[in-house]
Amino acid sequence: MPDPEFTFRSDVTVELVKHTASDSDVVFAARVSTLGEQAEEMNQCRDIRTGLTARDSGLINYLMRDQHGSPFEHNSMTFFVEAPIFVFREFMRHRVGFSYNEESGRYRTLQPVFYVPGPDRKLGQFGPASKYTLVEGTEEQHQTKTACMEHSYKVAYAMYQEMLIDGIAREVARAVLPVGLFSSMYVTCNARSLMNFLTLRTTHPQAKVPSFPQREIEMVAEQMETAWAALMPVTHETFNANGRVAP
Amino acid sequence: MPDPEFTFRSDVTVELVKHTASDSDVVFAARVSTLGEQAEEMNQCRDIRTGLTARDSGLINYLMRDQHGSPFEHNSMTFFVEAPIFVFREFMRHRVGFSYNEESGRYRTLQPVFYVPGPDRKLGQFGPASKYTLVEGTEEQHQTKTACMEHSYKVAYAMYQEMLIDGIAREVARAVLPVGLFSSMYVTCNARSLMNFLTLRTTHPQAKVPSFPQREIEMVAEQMETAWAALMPVTHETFNANGRVAP
Amino acid sequence: MPDPEFTFRSDVTVELVKHTASDSDVVFAARVSTLGEQAEEMNQCRDIRTGLTARDSGLINYLMRDQHGSPFEHNSMTFFVEAPIFVFREFMRHRVGFSYNEESGRYRTLQPVFYVPGPDRKLGQFGPASKYTLVEGTEEQHQTKTACMEHSYKVAYAMYQEMLIDGIAREVARAVLPVGLFSSMYVTCNARSLMNFLTLRTTHPQAKVPSFPQREIEMVAEQMETAWAALMPVTHETFNANGRVAP
Amino acid sequence: MPDPEFTFRSDVTVELVKHTASDSDVVFAARVSTLGEQAEEMNQCRDIRTGLTARDSGLINYLMRDQHGSPFEHNSMTFFVEAPIFVFREFMRHRVGFSYNEESGRYRTLQPVFYVPGPDRKLGQFGPASKYTLVEGTEEQHQTKTACMEHSYKVAYAMYQEMLIDGIAREVARAVLPVGLFSSMYVTCNARSLMNFLTLRTTHPQAKVPSFPQREIEMVAEQMETAWAALMPVTHETFNANGRVAP
Repeated sequence: MPDPEFTFRSDVTVELVKHTASDSDVVFAARVSTLGEQAEEMNQCRDIRTGLTARDSGLINYLMRDQHGSPFEHNSMTFFVEAPIFVFREFMRHRVGFSYNEESGRYRTLQPVFYVPGPDRKLGQFGPASKYTLVEGTEEQHQTKTACMEHSYKVAYAMYQEMLIDGIAREVARAVLPVGLFSSMYVTCNARSLMNFLTLRTTHPQAKVPSFPQREIEMVAEQMETAWAALMPVTHETFNANGRVAP
Repeated sequence: MPDPEFTFRSDVTVELVKHTASDSDVVFAARVSTLGEQAEEMNQCRDIRTGLTARDSGLINYLMRDQHGSPFEHNSMTFFVEAPIFVFREFMRHRVGFSYNEESGRYRTLQPVFYVPGPDRKLGQFGPASKYTLVEGTEEQHQTKTACMEHSYKVAYAMYQEMLIDGIAREVARAVLPVGLFSSMYVTCNARSLMNFLTLRTTHPQAKVPSFPQREIEMVAEQMETAWAALMPVTHETFNANGRVAP
Repeated sequence: MPDPEFTFRSDVTVELVKHTASDSDVVFAARVSTLGEQAEEMNQCRDIRTGLTARDSGLINYLMRDQHGSPFEHNSMTFFVEAPIFVFREFMRHRVGFSYNEESGRYRTLQPVFYVPGPDRKLGQFGPASKYTLVEGTEEQHQTKTACMEHSYKVAYAMYQEMLIDGIAREVARAVLPVGLFSSMYVTCNARSLMNFLTLRTTHPQAKVPSFPQREIEMVAEQMETAWAALMPVTHETFNANGRVAP
Repeated sequence: MPDPEFTFRSDVTVELVKHTASDSDVVFAARVSTLGEQAEEMNQCRDIRTGLTARDSGLINYLMRDQHGSPFEHNSMTFFVEAPIFVFREFMRHRVGFSYNEESGRYRTLQPVFYVPGPDRKLGQFGPASKYTLVEGTEEQHQTKTACMEHSYKVAYAMYQEMLIDGIAREVARAVLPVGLFSSMYVTCNARSLMNFLTLRTTHPQAKVPSFPQREIEMVAEQMETAWAALMPVTHETFNANGRVAP
């Protein structure tokens, strides 16, 4: 086995692979309950970007505000995500409205791509364990972090390789690999399950309920949010305007 | 209020409204675990209809046979369905991988469209309650059924209207409406949740596990299956070939 | 078949059949993340009713306020419920954290027990369909309601019986039965899924988000809430104190 | 920080913490559909261990065979589990009918307890990556495995400690910790979701559908199965007799 080429990343990858998702999906699903009213809509002005009337947008706002969640489920987005295992561990706690397929360490040899936080990552921890605050790391802390991580990652991967060379099963050898190793997955969700995820996994000035996501999953969440906001701009704006409480 | 125009239907409506669903979605999701192998695929012959190689089809068969369900979730189909309430009551017992929005009897006046089984519906019941068999109805039974249903439906709807005219709330007045009344809904699912539904809600010569769906929900299921089979033909064939056991 | 004895009910039945649910379950599940801290708890005063320390109660409050929902799932309550079909139709829209088994109109002859709202049920509807208000019914409206319902129910049940006598299958004959017919079910949930249900299916002065449940499902929800509050009093108080927003 | 005391384990911990689960729960839930029949049961002989009549057991067998799953959901079991992170990663892919609370590496310092497979763990891997076979490890392979793992684990933990001493946040420092580190969680499920888990996460001579679980999650699954079998012996026997296909 040749010497591995280590990659140390401080970013994550999020690609929208496929989707069927638009603001009008929400409107149609909600209107099934009040079908008679649709006729009146014919002559209304429609927003050129979204195809919605002012009344449509008002309906979306009403659904969000009063927590009628089901009309936000009739759409679908599939993302390809590359991130460290510790991010996927948090991600997969989301059970409802999420489908996952992840790279398997049983069926392939995992590649030496590892997470090392970048210079803008807050490193220092203060206060009690259950309510800690993060602060900018010192120059010295950043050096320690990079040195410790790279060293540990390299030793772990060398031991992984040594076991593989010796004919030991991948599923056994992988036990030494760190949760900072990058993995990849396809994840499919809908606007409702995504909003739930965003409520918990982002911080945002408009959020009514505070949340304290780890920065790395927030980096994934922010990219998913950007992709979603482009597909369903009215729903996204309404989510913000209503305090980012998932309906 | 004018005299209502009653509609008696013996059929159901199923329309595929939107979707993102193809056999190749299954392959991509499954391959994320064994990414290295994809390169070899480049030169393979591809089926002109599905774009799949023979190896892709083999992969789908393996996933179905060994019950690896998650790769079948990264797709989405939204249907508009019109059927009697008793069908929706059974339908909505499917909780996982299904999203629903149904017409509401609280927010609109329900229309007088009712279900009366057609001449090919088996009417007669024999045997113990828990393992009954259905047989063709006699001419006389069909007459009884049509007469009893139409009479009952008409009385119920007249009472509904009388209460509405008297200013009684829709949500109260609807209590008299029968489960044979037609309702409508949007329902969104994926190939995995749909296969689960089909396993329980259709009878089929290739099914390994017997199931005893009521004919009316089977009518809905059959139309959904037809639409799905056109989108994901290889997955559908493989589902049949493996005994219609949902993975 | 003898003349049926009709029962007209204006109430619902909710019985707590079995459970394993206490406030301390929440505390234990939450503490698994911070196991080291438990030792310090040994010498704390404990509430005689709940066995919780002041710090335990504070933890529950923190979980509720900051929307950490999972610790509220490690408990279970099974209820037996009798209510009209239109209530069950709304109930079964709750998919997550709810298990259902309902009486079947395919396997047994349904009994003539029907819902007729009592004198305290608001009957009159005002305003636009999508934002209607209910007001007390007049004496005359109550008479209309009772007369229309009883008449309609009796005709429907007579037609149901006539079809059964003629040998027509139960699953077909039941189409004429109204959504005001009583059904029964077992339903199992946990504190988290129940709080979600209560948020949507009750009105309450402490609720931050308004909801507009139909009165009949609220009657079921209120009885479930009373039973739950006795089992998990601290969780219940905290739910109220935090605006009845399910975590 | 003192030198850590490393613990290397080759076993897992599974404790049944609390439950409400018995075979009769299944029977009651199923019987709600055919309530009239219960009277006849009064004079039947009951099994002294389970309290079930022969007819009750027959009912459970029928439900299992014909894949009627919902009656198996009205029960609850909570387990405390200690196992390596790579086991929890697989475990938490089970989304339906499972509740989790796991120890957090953000809120506490993780302890140096690591997984090293015991001498009976098959170590050698043969065959193509997607259909590999495991064989007994040689003496030399066992030595390599133990040496590589212990070395890698010790370096990783030392680097973790060095970062903590330097004031670097736990949530950052943990990135170097391996998936062979032990974690702990509470997990709550019901008989239906547990059977689904067992179908996929155990190998068994009576299983109709083959499955290929990694040995370490199977070790957890086997202990959960033993605890469950003691609570619901008839359901467990019936699960086996019907090919261990979860209903």
